Amino acid sequence: MEALVLESAQRISLRPFSLPQAVGPRDVRIRINTVGICGSDIHYYQHGRIGPFVVTEPMVLGHEAAGTVVQVGDEVTSLKPGDRVCMEPGVPDTESRASREGMYNLDPKVRFWATPPVHGCLAPFVVHPAAFTYKLPDNVSFAEGAIVEPLSIGLQAAKKAAIKPGDVAVVLGAGTIGMMCALGALAGGCSRAIVCDLVPEKLELIGNTPGVTTVDIRNTSVKDVVNRLTDGWGANVVLEASGSARAFEGIIDLLCPGGCLVLVGMPQNPVPLDVVALQIKEARVESVFRYANIFPRAIQLIASGRIDVKPFISRTFPFAEGIKAFEEAASGKPTDVKVQILME
Amino acid sequence: MEALVLESAQRISLRPFSLPQAVGPRDVRIRINTVGICGSDIHYYQHGRIGPFVVTEPMVLGHEAAGTVVQVGDEVTSLKPGDRVCMEPGVPDTESRASREGMYNLDPKVRFWATPPVHGCLAPFVVHPAAFTYKLPDNVSFAEGAIVEPLSIGLQAAKKAAIKPGDVAVVLGAGTIGMMCALGALAGGCSRAIVCDLVPEKLELIGNTPGVTTVDIRNTSVKDVVNRLTDGWGANVVLEASGSARAFEGIIDLLCPGGCLVLVGMPQNPVPLDVVALQIKEARVESVFRYANIFPRAIQLIASGRIDVKPFISRTFPFAEGIKAFEEAASGKPTDVKVQILME
Amino acid sequence: MEALVLESAQRISLRPFSLPQAVGPRDVRIRINTVGICGSDIHYYQHGRIGPFVVTEPMVLGHEAAGTVVQVGDEVTSLKPGDRVCMEPGVPDTESRASREGMYNLDPKVRFWATPPVHGCLAPFVVHPAAFTYKLPDNVSFAEGAIVEPLSIGLQAAKKAAIKPGDVAVVLGAGTIGMMCALGALAGGCSRAIVCDLVPEKLELIGNTPGVTTVDIRNTSVKDVVNRLTDGWGANVVLEASGSARAFEGIIDLLCPGGCLVLVGMPQNPVPLDVVALQIKEARVESVFRYANIFPRAIQLIASGRIDVKPFISRTFPFAEGIKAFEEAASGKPTDVKVQILME
Amino acid sequence: MEALVLESAQRISLRPFSLPQAVGPRDVRIRINTVGICGSDIHYYQHGRIGPFVVTEPMVLGHEAAGTVVQVGDEVTSLKPGDRVCMEPGVPDTESRASREGMYNLDPKVRFWATPPVHGCLAPFVVHPAAFTYKLPDNVSFAEGAIVEPLSIGLQAAKKAAIKPGDVAVVLGAGTIGMMCALGALAGGCSRAIVCDLVPEKLELIGNTPGVTTVDIRNTSVKDVVNRLTDGWGANVVLEASGSARAFEGIIDLLCPGGCLVLVGMPQNPVPLDVVALQIKEARVESVFRYANIFPRAIQLIASGRIDVKPFISRTFPFAEGIKAFEEAASGKPTDVKVQILME
Repeated sequence: MEALVLESAQRISLRPFSLPQAVGPRDVRIRINTVGICGSDIHYYQHGRIGPFVVTEPMVLGHEAAGTVVQVGDEVTSLKPGDRVCMEPGVPDTESRASREGMYNLDPKVRFWATPPVHGCLAPFVVHPAAFTYKLPDNVSFAEGAIVEPLSIGLQAAKKAAIKPGDVAVVLGAGTIGMMCALGALAGGCSRAIVCDLVPEKLELIGNTPGVTTVDIRNTSVKDVVNRLTDGWGANVVLEASGSARAFEGIIDLLCPGGCLVLVGMPQNPVPLDVVALQIKEARVESVFRYANIFPRAIQLIASGRIDVKPFISRTFPFAEGIKAFEEAASGKPTDVKVQILME
Repeated sequence: MEALVLESAQRISLRPFSLPQAVGPRDVRIRINTVGICGSDIHYYQHGRIGPFVVTEPMVLGHEAAGTVVQVGDEVTSLKPGDRVCMEPGVPDTESRASREGMYNLDPKVRFWATPPVHGCLAPFVVHPAAFTYKLPDNVSFAEGAIVEPLSIGLQAAKKAAIKPGDVAVVLGAGTIGMMCALGALAGGCSRAIVCDLVPEKLELIGNTPGVTTVDIRNTSVKDVVNRLTDGWGANVVLEASGSARAFEGIIDLLCPGGCLVLVGMPQNPVPLDVVALQIKEARVESVFRYANIFPRAIQLIASGRIDVKPFISRTFPFAEGIKAFEEAASGKPTDVKVQILME
Repeated sequence: MEALVLESAQRISLRPFSLPQAVGPRDVRIRINTVGICGSDIHYYQHGRIGPFVVTEPMVLGHEAAGTVVQVGDEVTSLKPGDRVCMEPGVPDTESRASREGMYNLDPKVRFWATPPVHGCLAPFVVHPAAFTYKLPDNVSFAEGAIVEPLSIGLQAAKKAAIKPGDVAVVLGAGTIGMMCALGALAGGCSRAIVCDLVPEKLELIGNTPGVTTVDIRNTSVKDVVNRLTDGWGANVVLEASGSARAFEGIIDLLCPGGCLVLVGMPQNPVPLDVVALQIKEARVESVFRYANIFPRAIQLIASGRIDVKPFISRTFPFAEGIKAFEEAASGKPTDVKVQILME
Repeated sequence: MEALVLESAQRISLRPFSLPQAVGPRDVRIRINTVGICGSDIHYYQHGRIGPFVVTEPMVLGHEAAGTVVQVGDEVTSLKPGDRVCMEPGVPDTESRASREGMYNLDPKVRFWATPPVHGCLAPFVVHPAAFTYKLPDNVSFAEGAIVEPLSIGLQAAKKAAIKPGDVAVVLGAGTIGMMCALGALAGGCSRAIVCDLVPEKLELIGNTPGVTTVDIRNTSVKDVVNRLTDGWGANVVLEASGSARAFEGIIDLLCPGGCLVLVGMPQNPVPLDVVALQIKEARVESVFRYANIFPRAIQLIASGRIDVKPFISRTFPFAEGIKAFEEAASGKPTDVKVQILME
């Protein structure tokens, strides 16, 4: 079986690789159809590590995947061969305290695809627990199924915000995650998402989504736009999705009294927090780490048409051109949101 | 000044009537443009009472209104003459305990338009507190402004449900309030609203809204549809908007574990509640009484295009034909959702 | 090994009985020290069934237990032999959807001690999953550990109520669960629990708890007491713990605007619900089915001294007198709250 | 009428001063009995300003007060002469948007006693809106009534934390507000409050409260204590009440997964926030600005005995010695929590 393997930083191969294929009683085996390339895949490709996670041995990349069930374990009743599915890439110990409390994403024992030492799914077949494998409705394509993973981050952010119907959201950063946050905020009940960035191509793309107002921060004050659209009250929700320290300057000023700041982007260093500014608005801050119990919600929103992810699938490469796909994705073309690899 | 006056049950006049026009320091005076006819207006017209509220003296009807500010009190800074506005018909004592706690709709001292002994707004000019008068953005018409009031009930129901992104909702009853609940549930974060009724015209109309699935309960099991669309998990939210005792049969069976039933419709008599069925799902029940702090949300959702109310404004009559408008509205034409009167 | 076995309705034996003792990799084996007798144990003893759960074969009784770990499975790191523990009697499939969402008590596959066909713990040794076995601090006795289970129901009710500091609670019914609800409400943030019953001995007992006001409903109006203690505002929380249909008469009148009714007791038949009365207060109804993620909370509250359960442990019998213990518990002595069996 | 007047920084007089005594239709006039001295009073006394609030004209000090109603306005029905009361010192515009939403503490128009240019209540008589004047039960003394104000900050913090029964809290800082936070956290549902400071007298005093564990940070690691008391899980709630930048070092490490940090203290400058540390725990941050809708809760908790504030009323001076009271309070004696002035 061929797989897309990160040998070490900047060295990637499409080569035979053996992933375990034993199907446990609660597992399913899946023929992979589509895999999206994530920023973290690219980061491992370029740097061989993300923070404390270091690639010390060859590792199969990829964690945004959809495919078809080909075999099911003895105890599996929720799925059957032939089912089209997408997979949650992080598998927790479901008996841990965090899992029992419904926060399985916070279980320190989570095994997450393509995070050393766990292999990813850029291979023709993978084995996965049925409990973290989700059936796709007929009207949801594999490509859409493979984008459920990043969309889930945006929806987790929206869930954390505890949006009330008609809230106004600001999204700082129009990278892939920022766009997913905008989709999540709107689908989650916001009347508007004011998306802010400095790359015109990105703003133009997300700006086509109904409910989105874009702000080019090179020439426009976000605060002015928020004040105009909210009669000076402020935004109910600000989703920080840039990870840039500069985005934190004046960020609290964007909020309405009692508003909520959701931290999605991951700044490299601590950022200064103006506690008194926060207090004067009794603002709330929420933070997001991946997602829990979101995949079924993301699938429903795509299936019902409430979220249209198709504009964000930018380019698709065949598996044979997987290395090129990575190089292209790594080149950071401003019109690329999601690059996917078609496996079969 | 002419007004549409309910003289007593089934006797309605368009005749000169004097409403107080003194503008207090925190009031505004509004030239009314559009008034929607509500089921309660019709009920007063037909029966001269709603429960304990009895029309004992001639009363101006109407409480769903939009218009233009023509005069403002000395202390008013949020509005100015020429502003296009819609008005919240219930005015509480803002110093009451319920109001201080943010639940001003529950203040027993609320004075609500066209609820005896308080006059309504089917007149060319009314005076109203600025705090309960809301500016309409340029892209929201008077007709849309006048439907903000019933939409707010649907949004209050959605707010109470505490919808999480992607929830599946069932709406029981496709009358005006049921339709507003469907719009509210979808705008508030649901992936789907499964709307159930037995009048095909109503189902057809609401069925055109993206995200709505309709169920004709004369020939289809709601539970089967819910199970099919949720893989047997159940609906996260059930909005009871029919007020019919029969709708409560098996209603808990529609819910998923931990789901929420929102009581919007007002059944005449107590309904049987299966406590144990509720407990086995640890279901939550919420109830709705009008709305609080919802008008700005409704206006934002219309202005941003997230809610399209235009299909639900069925017919419009000039003020001179106001009596005919009431007769038509009272005739219960199945294609009528909202009948409005154009005042100027 | 001897066990207390329900042979069939009204026939109970203390006799040799073989329970599985194989210790799986994530299990622990526990020497049982104390077991409380629950109303459900008594109900099985008297009637041989509870609703759909029928005792068709001999079944070991008991599900409120504390003891000492004597053996741990290979993968267990949280516990070691010699640890004093109490056990959660219901074990879910932690991979089920309900469990993943943090509501493992709602998993239909829960296996619950002494619920046919699952044996209970009235035996010298049991094997249990480590994940549902909780260490007792040194200052918490086995007797206190064995009352954690019923206390957890009261705390689940308090958690569901989402008590705000200083809320006033009413508890309807002063049976064991009602008393646990009163303790839970107070520990959970209430300023007062107004406990209502018609058995003076029970009222006297719970009335000794600081913060409890008792109401003998034979001669005093609950509503009058609530009004007096809340200046007419009403109770923030009403915990229905009697399961009596009569308790539901006027129950909504006890609530303040925006208040919460928690359904803990299980009435045999549906009760009439006055929807409009609920709506006028925009009241919320929550329901309770056992508990989830509560045992650690109950243990902390006992260990810190915030909850004193000792007054509610009424009588203790040695294991050799286990049958007498059941007969006594079944006799319904009004001063008995919790009867326990000391196993070793 | 004599009043305690801050003439300018460090100059305080007890001298005749005329405060408006006209009683509006919704006002009450109160004979002041007891006034507590707050850190803000002392700060104005010492520095003549707090941030942007500058004392430019003589200002009556004091905002923590209890007394007796001597006169009521025409529309007042909730109070009558002779009622013993305490007063909320901040009076908002109840028609503002923040007030309508139940967050009247965030209304920028709040007029707050002893905050320039608004006079305080260190005078024999004051006039106040009935809506912000609360009746004291017979068993709550004036001294206790006068401490309701600082206690309300602790309870607001507890409310914001959304404590679940049995949560473990850490309180950083054992000044007056830290102590009130500890009382609030325990009354609000925590099993324990781990209070951290470096002044032994303060730790000893708060350590007498049942449920409190104290940590002298000069020689003990807070994290070690938290880990020991929570089996390594972490604290559910951390209440930062020191306002010291150093308290923020490692603060997130104290939290459990999904835990909540409540910002009560007001650091002078922005503090560094480790966003990624927050995300890994999906922690929530809440912030507190005074309180809203808390006074009735505080009074209930004192009246029911759930909170005992008496140990925190350290010393009482007669009004004639009011200047000395300020000097003593300003001296920062470590055993002083609350110094009060008895007015009559």
